[in-house]
Amino acid sequence: MNQKQLLRGAADTVAANVPLADFNTADAVEFLNTLPLPRAADTLAAVPLPRAVKLLEAPELQRAGQLVAALPPPRAAALLGLMADDRATDIVHELDDSHRARLIPLLAPEARHSIQLLLGYPPDTAGALMTTEFVGVPADWSVAQTLQHIREVERSRETVYAIYVLDPSSGQLQQVVTLRRLITGAPDASILSVAQLNPPVTVDPLLDQEEVARLIRRHDLLAIPVVDAQRRMLGIVTVDDILDALIDESTEDVHKFGGVEALDRPYMQIGFFEMLRKRAGWLSVLFLGEMLTASAMQHYEQELARAVVLTLFIPLIMSSGGNSGSQATSLLIRSLALRELRLRDWWKVALRELPTGIVLGGILGVLAIIRISVWQLGGLHDYGEHWGLLALTIGAALVGIVTFGSLSGSMLPFALKRLGFDPASASAPFVATLVDVTGLVIYFSIAALILRGTLL
Amino acid sequence: MNQKQLLRGAADTVAANVPLADFNTADAVEFLNTLPLPRAADTLAAVPLPRAVKLLEAPELQRAGQLVAALPPPRAAALLGLMADDRATDIVHELDDSHRARLIPLLAPEARHSIQLLLGYPPDTAGALMTTEFVGVPADWSVAQTLQHIREVERSRETVYAIYVLDPSSGQLQQVVTLRRLITGAPDASILSVAQLNPPVTVDPLLDQEEVARLIRRHDLLAIPVVDAQRRMLGIVTVDDILDALIDESTEDVHKFGGVEALDRPYMQIGFFEMLRKRAGWLSVLFLGEMLTASAMQHYEQELARAVVLTLFIPLIMSSGGNSGSQATSLLIRSLALRELRLRDWWKVALRELPTGIVLGGILGVLAIIRISVWQLGGLHDYGEHWGLLALTIGAALVGIVTFGSLSGSMLPFALKRLGFDPASASAPFVATLVDVTGLVIYFSIAALILRGTLL
Repeated sequence: MNQKQLLRGAADTVAANVPLADFNTADAVEFLNTLPLPRAADTLAAVPLPRAVKLLEAPELQRAGQLVAALPPPRAAALLGLMADDRATDIVHELDDSHRARLIPLLAPEARHSIQLLLGYPPDTAGALMTTEFVGVPADWSVAQTLQHIREVERSRETVYAIYVLDPSSGQLQQVVTLRRLITGAPDASILSVAQLNPPVTVDPLLDQEEVARLIRRHDLLAIPVVDAQRRMLGIVTVDDILDALIDESTEDVHKFGGVEALDRPYMQIGFFEMLRKRAGWLSVLFLGEMLTASAMQHYEQELARAVVLTLFIPLIMSSGGNSGSQATSLLIRSLALRELRLRDWWKVALRELPTGIVLGGILGVLAIIRISVWQLGGLHDYGEHWGLLALTIGAALVGIVTFGSLSGSMLPFALKRLGFDPASASAPFVATLVDVTGLVIYFSIAALILRGTLL
Repeated sequence: MNQKQLLRGAADTVAANVPLADFNTADAVEFLNTLPLPRAADTLAAVPLPRAVKLLEAPELQRAGQLVAALPPPRAAALLGLMADDRATDIVHELDDSHRARLIPLLAPEARHSIQLLLGYPPDTAGALMTTEFVGVPADWSVAQTLQHIREVERSRETVYAIYVLDPSSGQLQQVVTLRRLITGAPDASILSVAQLNPPVTVDPLLDQEEVARLIRRHDLLAIPVVDAQRRMLGIVTVDDILDALIDESTEDVHKFGGVEALDRPYMQIGFFEMLRKRAGWLSVLFLGEMLTASAMQHYEQELARAVVLTLFIPLIMSSGGNSGSQATSLLIRSLALRELRLRDWWKVALRELPTGIVLGGILGVLAIIRISVWQLGGLHDYGEHWGLLALTIGAALVGIVTFGSLSGSMLPFALKRLGFDPASASAPFVATLVDVTGLVIYFSIAALILRGTLL
């Protein structure tokens, strides 16, 4: 551990005359991101070890896995061993099997052990996010002893602002002490004298990162302890890892809502064929679903032939259903994610969306009737002798379709959650497709009702 | 300040026999959120002052403004005065003018001054997020002096983990010292001996919160100092405020992408008419835009009358354009937000989207040709003698429309950014509307080209 401390401490004091010496870490990372991969790897190989560690630990560094893979293996292993173990694990995750098999045996035993432990947890869980480098002290220590210990290990720990007090015999987590309270304690007093009164909030290593973020926010913590079934500490998840996880999560949510499989790397770094794969899948599924509109239209082909004027408004009517559905879905996705609503509240939402949809549809219906009347009476277009009934049909169809869109758009996230999926998997294109087919049926049914004996 | 310290310290030790005494803060907040407003306000009026402060400071408390407005004004003013000033300002922001005018004069001078200062900054800026309760010490202090000062003020500061070293005469920010480094310093040494080597990263009070989040993450900070043009400190933004801001921001982004004005309160708390307003605006604008599809269709009415079969595929073709557009928009919105791409990179993106769109359109085109052939040859539907040319028309139109959708969907966020708007204002319904009209024109132009002399 001593070498690790020394090297980390030296990171700020790199000599001049080495690559990137004039940059601070954040700027150096930005510069590395712009270099072609081989040159970036050469640069990373040439900077002093502690500096390279800082660069690899920066969350904004792109292609970290590829960079490590391109380094000479002993150098790569040295870097991984010196890095914070959670970040090192992220990088090992990105390596392919052959690189992984070559690097892991070269790691120091301690680093190898903690990386292999962290590799075992599924991605996006507390276990995968956590670091094992926390400060844990036995409950029979004094304030002064603890402070002295922190001074010694400070350089090798991700955070020292939360100190975990463990049962000396069982190793179970007893209490949490914050550094700000610790420094106010009397030196000879027991560490427990400055501990928080509430029992510590802990998480299971398999808890989803979104849930971990919620707990950290809810209890206003800088780090949350991850414990096993016996309340022995496995590690901690720190607030900066949660910040990164939240940013990734919100990228993923926007991608999913747009109907793409989430990308885990920047746009320009995704290969052409990978990009196609991420998009073609959903696009084809939606296309196959949307083919039902062609079948529905075929069903009404006779009506269409008799009243071509009906087709003029199909895009307008269908898109309004999709738009109102995508509005409702976006509202409910977030309400469910933020736990403002539970699964059992679905009927309350349905009861609100029903009148909301009727009024929204009514507004659009009136707009449509005005549009048709103005064009007809202003001589801009002739919709035929039954234009009044046609306008009524369009207006009524809009009420029906927007109501259906709002209702199904709001119920979709509940349905997905009920089926065990992430409500955020509901995408705007998916809602639109769902609404389109039914929209056509609503339109033609209302047309048949109003226009029978005149146009149809 | 002394009373503030004492009261805050007492918050953990509420006596039994008072409301909520058995709950920890997070659970009590959840309970309050479920109560009707008058009962929640009564409860908040009955708990001890320090407990009420903790509850009001919790980011998950809903209706905080309404609760404070419902309290007796002297109690409300006492609570606001004891709260962290940034959170108190948030609440004052939520009050209407009459409540605000009644409460502000009742505040203690110090609290009134800092709340009025913070109220002056536009929402979602560093100034609006910051707290003025930070630890600042003159540069001529020693390590021991600083530690003693922190012990004294610890209870009244939002964070003591970053200590700001100020020039004794000008008050300018010189250096930042972290508490973890401070406790490793020799007691008699100057505070500057444990300061960071790099000049501190600072922000302007008018900087957008998304940018503040990016800097905090980039430099791995727990708090970032906000300074004026003379580098005098105005306050700090802490990582927990950024966490809240990021969660709000990602809710806003999903709402906007769904085509709704962002809601600032939970779904069930938005009144019926406010909800209508938030949705009807965009829905009507999109509807007016989409009316152009009816105009486009009118233009092709003769072709439609001659070849009704063409109408069967209009919904299928148009939705594919919208879907590919919404995919591209979701990808680029996040890439721009994360600064993976700059405005000047638009042509690189266009050069990638062009072939991507062609291949994606080709895949859908082949699926459509297969669908038409199977239905025709399998006797499921008769598309007429020219069904082969019809299939070719649909396939070619899909290539054109999906390419156009991908291109315009990806360029829209750049265009919005160029015009000074947030790229995240691009919504899936907006892209779909944009693509729909052009999609119809592409479809009918290709049909005219391929089917002239046969169907048309």
